[in-house]
Amino acid sequence: MNVALLSIGDELLGGRITDTNAEFLSREVTALGASVVERAVVPDERTAIGGAIGRLAGVADVLVCTGGLGPTTDDLSRWAAADLLDTGEVIDDEEVAAAVRTWCDGVGVPMTEVRAVVAKRPPSAAFVSNDQGTAPGLHFRLGSCDVWMLPGPPVEMGSMFRRHVAEVIGQEASAARPIEVRAAGLTEVQASDLLGDRLDRTLRPQLGIRVGGGLVRVTAQDPDGLCTQSQVNASAEAARKALRHWSLPADCEALAEAVGVAVQGRGWTCVTAESCTGGGIAAALTAVPGSSAWFLGGFVTYANDMKVQQLGVCQTLLSPSGPGAVSAEVVEAMAAKARLLSGADVAVSVSGIAGPDGGSPDKPVGTVWVGLSDSGGTESRCLRVPGDRSKVRSGTVDAAMQWMRWRASGVVERLPWERAQ
Amino acid sequence: MNVALLSIGDELLGGRITDTNAEFLSREVTALGASVVERAVVPDERTAIGGAIGRLAGVADVLVCTGGLGPTTDDLSRWAAADLLDTGEVIDDEEVAAAVRTWCDGVGVPMTEVRAVVAKRPPSAAFVSNDQGTAPGLHFRLGSCDVWMLPGPPVEMGSMFRRHVAEVIGQEASAARPIEVRAAGLTEVQASDLLGDRLDRTLRPQLGIRVGGGLVRVTAQDPDGLCTQSQVNASAEAARKALRHWSLPADCEALAEAVGVAVQGRGWTCVTAESCTGGGIAAALTAVPGSSAWFLGGFVTYANDMKVQQLGVCQTLLSPSGPGAVSAEVVEAMAAKARLLSGADVAVSVSGIAGPDGGSPDKPVGTVWVGLSDSGGTESRCLRVPGDRSKVRSGTVDAAMQWMRWRASGVVERLPWERAQ
Repeated sequence: MNVALLSIGDELLGGRITDTNAEFLSREVTALGASVVERAVVPDERTAIGGAIGRLAGVADVLVCTGGLGPTTDDLSRWAAADLLDTGEVIDDEEVAAAVRTWCDGVGVPMTEVRAVVAKRPPSAAFVSNDQGTAPGLHFRLGSCDVWMLPGPPVEMGSMFRRHVAEVIGQEASAARPIEVRAAGLTEVQASDLLGDRLDRTLRPQLGIRVGGGLVRVTAQDPDGLCTQSQVNASAEAARKALRHWSLPADCEALAEAVGVAVQGRGWTCVTAESCTGGGIAAALTAVPGSSAWFLGGFVTYANDMKVQQLGVCQTLLSPSGPGAVSAEVVEAMAAKARLLSGADVAVSVSGIAGPDGGSPDKPVGTVWVGLSDSGGTESRCLRVPGDRSKVRSGTVDAAMQWMRWRASGVVERLPWERAQ
Repeated sequence: MNVALLSIGDELLGGRITDTNAEFLSREVTALGASVVERAVVPDERTAIGGAIGRLAGVADVLVCTGGLGPTTDDLSRWAAADLLDTGEVIDDEEVAAAVRTWCDGVGVPMTEVRAVVAKRPPSAAFVSNDQGTAPGLHFRLGSCDVWMLPGPPVEMGSMFRRHVAEVIGQEASAARPIEVRAAGLTEVQASDLLGDRLDRTLRPQLGIRVGGGLVRVTAQDPDGLCTQSQVNASAEAARKALRHWSLPADCEALAEAVGVAVQGRGWTCVTAESCTGGGIAAALTAVPGSSAWFLGGFVTYANDMKVQQLGVCQTLLSPSGPGAVSAEVVEAMAAKARLLSGADVAVSVSGIAGPDGGSPDKPVGTVWVGLSDSGGTESRCLRVPGDRSKVRSGTVDAAMQWMRWRASGVVERLPWERAQ
């Protein structure tokens, strides 16, 4: 089964945003066992959109278009579809209009003519429901091609693709469903070393490896439709074992979920004390639904005075003659006091130099101390995280979470980015 | 000047790698004042590559192709060019062959037949030198289109584009550089209403509107090369004024930066007290370099006990007979105490039901109370944020930041998602 993808939007062609939709859809379609035969990006122009749909419908069994379905004047996808199907005509859909009216009433905004545009569709197209936003998608056949037009916002598009389009593609495609194994806190090269000969491209099932969203992602797949699903599953399971305690449990999409599994599995609760990450560890942990069962809270002691007042860090440690805010002493004091004040079983703390300013020859940007306190005592480790402010912060969040997860699971391992002592 | 971009490679269509080349080139071309009129991605197939080059050469003045120029059997771009130009014929280029031989001798590898492939070119194409790798690019005319084929590795491609292609595009391009105006805390439709007739697509400069990264982004641009830079600048400035206090200052990429500008501009410091956002407000604020000048820290009081112990929230407020954790009383107590404990000039606090669980008929998922305390007193407002857990949290972070920013700037306005009282 051949699939083509069309992304619509001036902001893509101007390079102002990354076309993450095309990348997501490429992965999903491939994962369903079908092939992407072409991708295209066209501007917010009615004739350009219509021309591209017509052309791609001629080369693919399924065409998925994204973008240009919103209500404003530069959203022209519905009009391009109307040109192709019904010489430009659109009709009002009562059901969608009613849903938009309900939405407007709910959030207390007027139902304007502009908002009502999303209820218009070409008579020959059907609406595709959107449970994440107000603009529905469109679905129609053009020649022998099944055409799906989805809104541009990635959350809406992704949800609609999975609910409506994936099934159609999956039913027709013959290959086994690929399985992804996720690992945190190691590089692609380190993961490759652990996987060794399993990465041979001629093996079936085949393993693919890539980095995305702060994780190493290894996919067991069936590129030629020659494997059973249980062979693919077994290959993924072998990869998970090979990645040892860096791999996440099968149902965890993110490292924070794996922290929850480990902390809750141990019957523990946890707390955070953060300086350079400014609440990023707490925010990552609380992104997990149900985290209130194992996460109590956190202290964001960004200013030195907050470290003293909230966590009782000794003023002399922070004075010019002391070890300073980025030190073993300070993160250990932070972790121990956060644990004590909150009554949590385990506390992690971080203090570091995220940059761009604040580095010194002694403590360059990327120098981060991490502390951990539990009933066995309090320790600290020093990281040297490469990259800019954003990378130093996200690398620190991940290292601190990994340490807490490993501690709850009884794993002893060097942290990601940990400096040799 | 119209530019088209063609990316070549199975790994792109399979979603195994991100097409950073197309995004880079889109930005570079737009910055040079030319327009990208279409982007396409095709697989490593000789006929697909040739077909796409032929088609895109018909719609653009300049076509930049990337990928498929290496020496291995799945690198087919040179053969596709030869098909188009010289009925498949290639010749050996002595100069390039000699350079490859020197490179092989230098790194001590044999000069194999495979390595020698990069010295072959269609007689009608010229080589484009590559100072970062061994595979040169190709340059030729097809009809009225100037075609450049560059290798796929981003470092080589980027360097070659800037040294050889940018000048050609820059000399010919006449359009002014586009300017983006960002606004926070309103929907695309609300922004459209404020901009009104300015969004007419026939106007020059033209305004485009989209949503991305939690912001409404309005771009003033010159699609046909008919405007001066100062006309584009003036159009962007008019859009910024029309978007009133929702628009961010010109140099702010994110709402958090605008909070910093406002808080620091007032000579204030700030602090946060968070429940449902779990540190997300503090994390967003500290993502701004230099935020230590105006952000002191935060309290992440996720569990009720943390609200009592850290922020002195009265136990009776949280008891079953009291108003509960998600209430005006609790967020006001949180904000007032956070301000007092930290010594900050302004404090914001949030407590809400992010979901998926915890909702009730009385307080459904998305119900969030936000508190603000400054020297003038303490107030609270109730939001109803639509969407899933992630959207409720990010919408709350933005609303709280906007309130703090507006307060520091003396703006009185309904908050994003604020419920009618």
